Parts: sequence; C-alpha cells; structure tokens
Amino acid sequence: MTWPYKDLIAIADLSADEIGTILDMAASFKEISRRDIKKVPTLRGKTVVLLFYEPSTRTRLSFELAAKRLSADTTALSASGSSFTKGETIMDAAYNVMAMAPDCIIIRYPYAGIPKKMAQLLPCSIINAGDGYHEHPTQALLDMYSIKEHFGRLEGLNVTIVGDIMHSRVARSNVYGLRKMGAHVVLVTPKTLLPPGVETWGVEVSTALDPVIPESDVIMMLRVQKERLHQQFFSGEREYSFFYGLNKSRVQKMKEDAVIMHPGPMNRGVEITYDAADSARSIILDQVENGLAIRMTLLYLSLGGSVNVD
Amino acid sequence: MTWPYKDLIAIADLSADEIGTILDMAASFKEISRRDIKKVPTLRGKTVVLLFYEPSTRTRLSFELAAKRLSADTTALSASGSSFTKGETIMDAAYNVMAMAPDCIIIRYPYAGIPKKMAQLLPCSIINAGDGYHEHPTQALLDMYSIKEHFGRLEGLNVTIVGDIMHSRVARSNVYGLRKMGAHVVLVTPKTLLPPGVETWGVEVSTALDPVIPESDVIMMLRVQKERLHQQFFSGEREYSFFYGLNKSRVQKMKEDAVIMHPGPMNRGVEITYDAADSARSIILDQVENGLAIRMTLLYLSLGGSVNVD
Amino acid sequence: MTWPYKDLIAIADLSADEIGTILDMAASFKEISRRDIKKVPTLRGKTVVLLFYEPSTRTRLSFELAAKRLSADTTALSASGSSFTKGETIMDAAYNVMAMAPDCIIIRYPYAGIPKKMAQLLPCSIINAGDGYHEHPTQALLDMYSIKEHFGRLEGLNVTIVGDIMHSRVARSNVYGLRKMGAHVVLVTPKTLLPPGVETWGVEVSTALDPVIPESDVIMMLRVQKERLHQQFFSGEREYSFFYGLNKSRVQKMKEDAVIMHPGPMNRGVEITYDAADSARSIILDQVENGLAIRMTLLYLSLGGSVNVD
Repeated sequence: MTWPYKDLIAIADLSADEIGTILDMAASFKEISRRDIKKVPTLRGKTVVLLFYEPSTRTRLSFELAAKRLSADTTALSASGSSFTKGETIMDAAYNVMAMAPDCIIIRYPYAGIPKKMAQLLPCSIINAGDGYHEHPTQALLDMYSIKEHFGRLEGLNVTIVGDIMHSRVARSNVYGLRKMGAHVVLVTPKTLLPPGVETWGVEVSTALDPVIPESDVIMMLRVQKERLHQQFFSGEREYSFFYGLNKSRVQKMKEDAVIMHPGPMNRGVEITYDAADSARSIILDQVENGLAIRMTLLYLSLGGSVNVD
Repeated sequence: MTWPYKDLIAIADLSADEIGTILDMAASFKEISRRDIKKVPTLRGKTVVLLFYEPSTRTRLSFELAAKRLSADTTALSASGSSFTKGETIMDAAYNVMAMAPDCIIIRYPYAGIPKKMAQLLPCSIINAGDGYHEHPTQALLDMYSIKEHFGRLEGLNVTIVGDIMHSRVARSNVYGLRKMGAHVVLVTPKTLLPPGVETWGVEVSTALDPVIPESDVIMMLRVQKERLHQQFFSGEREYSFFYGLNKSRVQKMKEDAVIMHPGPMNRGVEITYDAADSARSIILDQVENGLAIRMTLLYLSLGGSVNVD
Repeated sequence: MTWPYKDLIAIADLSADEIGTILDMAASFKEISRRDIKKVPTLRGKTVVLLFYEPSTRTRLSFELAAKRLSADTTALSASGSSFTKGETIMDAAYNVMAMAPDCIIIRYPYAGIPKKMAQLLPCSIINAGDGYHEHPTQALLDMYSIKEHFGRLEGLNVTIVGDIMHSRVARSNVYGLRKMGAHVVLVTPKTLLPPGVETWGVEVSTALDPVIPESDVIMMLRVQKERLHQQFFSGEREYSFFYGLNKSRVQKMKEDAVIMHPGPMNRGVEITYDAADSARSIILDQVENGLAIRMTLLYLSLGGSVNVD
C-alpha cells in the first residue's frame, strides 16, 4: 500500500489509523540511528530543501539528519542572509524553489496557512515544520510516539499540557492527535492565554496546575516565550513559575509511572526547574531521539514509500 | 574537445560560438532535473565552495543544487557569521579557501573585479555569481537560454531591458551576450540611471517605455532597489511604477508572441504588477529552472568536462 | 593499535608520543587533498555536527571539508539563527544534539571548559575547535606539523610567539605542545597581556620583540583583537604595530632559514605588514593546508581508526 499523501500539513488532516501507521513505522526507522552506519540508500538522488523563516536548532537539525540518513541531498535556506529579506513574497520564493525541482520542501513559517497553500500549488512534497500558531505536526507525532513507547498505548491516558496554549502550535497539534488516539487531554493555562474556541476542542481546561497533577499520566510543559511574559498576558516570570512551573514538589505529587515532557528549548528556572527537567521521569531527550525517527518516516512516506516495508 | 577555460568571469570574455556551445549543452543538463533520480556521478569527489558576500537565495540555491546533482561536495560560506567580518582582506580569505584545495569557488562580491583577480591568482575554477555593477554571467546565459528556448533563436530578436541599467550587472551581462548573439537590444531607463559610456554598447536607449513595447519580442524587467528610489535617482516608487512598471495595459500592447522576463526577486507592485508577473507571457519561472541547467553546464565545463558528451 | 581517545579537548592531555603519532599520520591524509578525486570512503555513514558558537571561516570550513573528504555527513549549526539564542543552556543543546546520534560533535565555544564537560557526559566524539581562552588543540597540531614539515624536527627549535598571549588559546595550546616536543618557546607580549601563572609554563618571556628576532627559528604572530587595543591593555593600534608588529626591517633581521606563521585571519597593517605576510619566509598558507590534514587525522582517529594504517 502506498501512503496517500504527498504532504504533511496538519494532524487535523490525519485519521487515527494513519497516525497509528506512522507511529508503527517509526520504530523501524528509529533502529537505523542506533546502528554503527546510520545510513540507508532509500532516498538517494532526492533533493530536500529546508526553508526556515524562524530560528530553529532541533527541528532543522532533526529534519536535516533524517533526510541525510535516508541518503537524500539537503539544502537549508534561512530567512536571514537570503533574498527573502528583499521584499519577495513567500509564494514567489516557493515557486522559485519549486522551479529547481526539489522532491520535498520542509517549511517553517511565522504565519499560519502558508504550508497548506504551498501544498496545494506545488507538485513536490511539503512538510510543515511549524506555521504560526497553527500546527507543528511532526512535533505532535514524536510526542505521541514517545508517550506510546513509554506506556504501550495512548488510549485512556491523561495528558496534561501546561503553558501558553493560545500561542502554541505544539499544543494544537497534540490536542488534535491525542484526542483522535483516545487520550484525555487537560490544558492548564492562565485565563489570558486560553485560545478562543477551546470549548470545541474536546478537552478539559484548568487554570490551576496543582489539582491536575495527581491524575496526569503525562505532564507536557510548553516553552514560555519570555517576551510574552512581559506583555499583557501575565504578571511576570516569577509569578508564572510559582503558579505554572514544574518543580520538585510538584514532581513528587505525580503518579508513580507518570512522565514529564517538553518540546524544547527549555527555559530552565521558568516553566521547569533543574530538578524537574533532570528527574528520572523526564522523557525529554527520548522526544528528541524519536523526532528523528518520525521525520525519517514522514520523508519516506511523503516521497512515495510503501506503508508495508517488505 | 575540452572547454578552454577554467573560469567564468564575464560574458564579455566569451565568443558567440562559445555562448552557443553552452546553450546547446544546457539542454541535456536540463533533462537531468526532470528525472526521478536527479543525480549523475560526473563530479563525484570534487569540492565546490560557495563564497557569497551578498545575500542571495535563488543564485546560491541554484549553484548548490547544480553542484549536488553532479555529485560534487558543496560548502557555503556567507559573509555574516564568518571571519570575513573580522577585517581580513578578500584575497587573504580567497587564498585561505584555496589552501584547502577546492576544485571550484563560486563567488558573489559587492564590488567589481574580485572574481577576475581570483581567477588570475588561484589555480582552481572561479565562477562569478555577480560582482558589483560589473557582470552576472550565469544570469545572462540562463536568460539567453530561456529566450532561445521560446523563440528557437536569438538572432534578430528585439530585447528590451527596463529599469536601473546603471547599477545592474544583469543588464550589462545580457547586453554583451545578446549583442554577440545578434539580438537587437533596447535599454529603457530614466536618464539618471543611464550608465556612462552606454553609447559604446551598441544598443538603443529610450527614456520612455510605452513606444518600445509594440516592437519588443522580449521585455526584461529589472528589479528595483527600493533604497535607490529614495535617493537622487528618481522621484519615488509610485512615479517609477507609473512610467516604467509593467502592468496589465502595457502587457496588452505586447506583440502576440512576446514574453516577459525578470531575474528575480520581484517587487510586485513596483516594477511589475501581479497581473503582469502572472500573465501567460511570463517565462520567469522557466528562467529559474534553466538557471540550474546553465550552472550544471558551467560547473561541468569549468571542471574539465569535454564539450562533446559521448 | 587503536587510538585510545574518543575526544580531543586539549594538547595538555596528549603525550609527546601521541602528538608524534598524529603528526606522522597527517602526512598521508595531506596527500589525499592533492589527488584529483579528494575523497576516501573511510567515514561513510558517520555524522559529524559542527556546533560553532563563535564566528569562524577557516576552522569551520577546514573541519567541514576534512569530514567530507572522509565521506562523513556534516551539519553545521551556528549560534545565530538557532534556538541557542533562545536562552537554552549549552548542555541542554548538547544533549539535544546527542539525542540525534551524531558520531562526532566539533564544538567552538566562547568560554573555557564546555568541550571537556561535553566529552565527559556524551558518548560521541568531541573535538574542541577552540574554547574561550583555554585551548585550540587542532591549531597547535597544525602549527607543529607545519614547523616540522619545514625543519624536519621540533626539538631544539626556538619558537617565538608574539602578541596578546593572555587572551590567546592558540598560544596556550602551542606552548603546551611545543614544550612537550622539546622546542624552546619565547613569548613576546606587552606586560598588560601576560597571563597570570606564565612563570610555570616553562617558557621565556620578553616584552620586547627586537632582541628576540635574531635567535628565532619561528616567529608566530598572533591576531590582534582590535577591540582589545582600545581597552586598558595597550595604547592603540599604531603603538602596537610599532612595538610588536612584524614588518620588513624586522623580517630582514630573521635567521636565514627562519619562518613566519600566523593562525589567521590576519589584520594586515596591525600585527603584520603586507611585506611580512607575503614574504618568502611566510608559511601561513601551508598552515591552512596542513590544518585540513590534521583535522582529517583527528576525525579518523577519534572515530575509531587504527593508528597503523595497513
């Protein structure tokens, strides 16, 4: 069976079965990165262009290594040091890149909707590496993979996501995916950072973290954008840590088998203390390792791979 | 027959026959980028260094992909984030790069003459990717290829180049090349942007666009540097668009088979309207695709390839 | 025999025998870069990540080409345009990179000690490409290689290092290495730029350059950080050049066979004049070429190569 999509734009576009297929396949791709020679010839001769309009280390590196381990050629363009800063529209830039016949464009863009538009208009594969406050689908897939790897399942788990939900594409993608896979999701956030329309998401909402902790199987901390803490949304860094930060005493109230997640990069001392980040419950680095496997899987599938690897 | 040059510095250095050879060979290189596996082993083990002292997306990407599709290794250095900002002279930087034994250096530099000096002093191939207001030879070659692809010939065509001729290396390289290939060239530009010495170029000059349109087979719009519009050269963006911008009504006055070109990146709404940029006459994206083929051809020839591919 | 170290952090960690082994092996790696096809399959499938928190051209390019000539895959991350600027700690960044299973991380960092900490905590190879004012071991190795290549030996030579010793990791690494190899080292520097504890280094110190010149086999000029000249350390650029710059008349007083070295990038006109930099005594570009060979050697050894290549 061939994967039916050339693009990955949003978790909202995938069925539970499709998510399940991706998570199942990622296990075999994860194994490749543990070999001595971490390279397979699957995508030899294919060209993958990374078009990043926002700074990124881990996501860009993860995609780049994923492509290289499949033997694709990669080229990275970032917004600075490029003519993207010369007033060209993003779609002109995209058509230009397309004219050079890449097989896949991985796009990160500060506003929502551009990856979808590119997917509709360009014949190559488009993978969304984060668009504005919309979605970050590979992050949610690696998060779901990491949870399933730990618990053996997603269904019926209580997943708590803590932080600035309104401005978080990570939260949005995770909510869509986790709900489809049968998890129960609790969003913990100050009222000022609740997204409009959250009542239709099928999740529970709490403005207090402490009551939620003892029930949670997963506590996923979101990164705090420090600049936002000094806007109208909240009264400052210290108060944020006090009410919403994960610290030692909160970790001690977690369920015996519960885990801590964070999409990175962490602001140690703000949304998570050193204790919490480095506790035995943390699967934060598993998330990073699994991200590479998820991205190899998606490159493989989007570029025409078969779902049944024989 | 072996190509006699290790470098490509200027269209002014090439004969009509040599330009013809490049355009003929580019067709077979263009075909490679349309294959499923877009890679040939021609330059395996060769090292191509991209030394870009000016921001660039399409040119750098085009050269980088051209090199990779020929299986060369590429490394890109840009002026920011390098010790080029530490007060080292460009020639010291060039000698340093040379000491690492690259096979080819592709150089873009804000002042004229540096690529030529590098070609004289360094044993590796030097390809000029644009030097100041001097030349941008691969751009002219891809432009000529695109025109010839459309019309089947260059000889006898009327090519109109519109914009800031004085500061345009694209215009200079095209004038030299098109004249050698027997085209008739008209330069349309405000008087303040006429380059000194233009009377020796063998071209026609007009300060008005409208009278020229009905005779033109090709209308090549140059990018407007917005910062220059606010200098002494012209009275502003709106006036520029009014007198020199390509818009719907001007497009309608073009000859039946005439085409629109632009080296990119476009300032939509300044030198070209959305209508004109997206009209059926536009071969702007063909230019981009052909650029990759031209650059593969030049890397192949400069690095010792034979003119007759058997 | 297998090389016993996965990392290269400091020349201080190596014995004279080990330094000798590296210098001996580098000769065969140097030969590869002089071939027509400059590539061997030794590290195929290995992943080398370049993590540069300080601007660099030659060192990054040198390591990158070294890795590519051994067929490793390389990915470069620089501090700008990455989430390193988002307040993440360097060790979190390092663990993140590690989670993606590179075989080697080449790190340049503005403060001392981080490469060592990474080597202790991460299972992959760590190569120090310069950490603060501590060490720059591959620079010292390429310097020693270049001296030995010229003189056939290191033992008994008089090596004079001139400049801002206090802030120079190049000087520190060279002192450690040259002393172990039996060279006599003289440091020439203004008193304000003498490092604390220099009396324990086993070197001679002079605040005047002229008396030292006639005895020196090697004069190694350090780069002057212009910003430092305008701090408390010295009275200005012109005075620095007058007292400590290498110029024509000083070159004429050098021993017949003596050589001039500089780690680059040079400030021509400050610590070295055009005359001196371009004199026949200069082996500055040999240093660059040898740097690539030294880095190929260290990648090969650190990633598990055998000391006896059969």
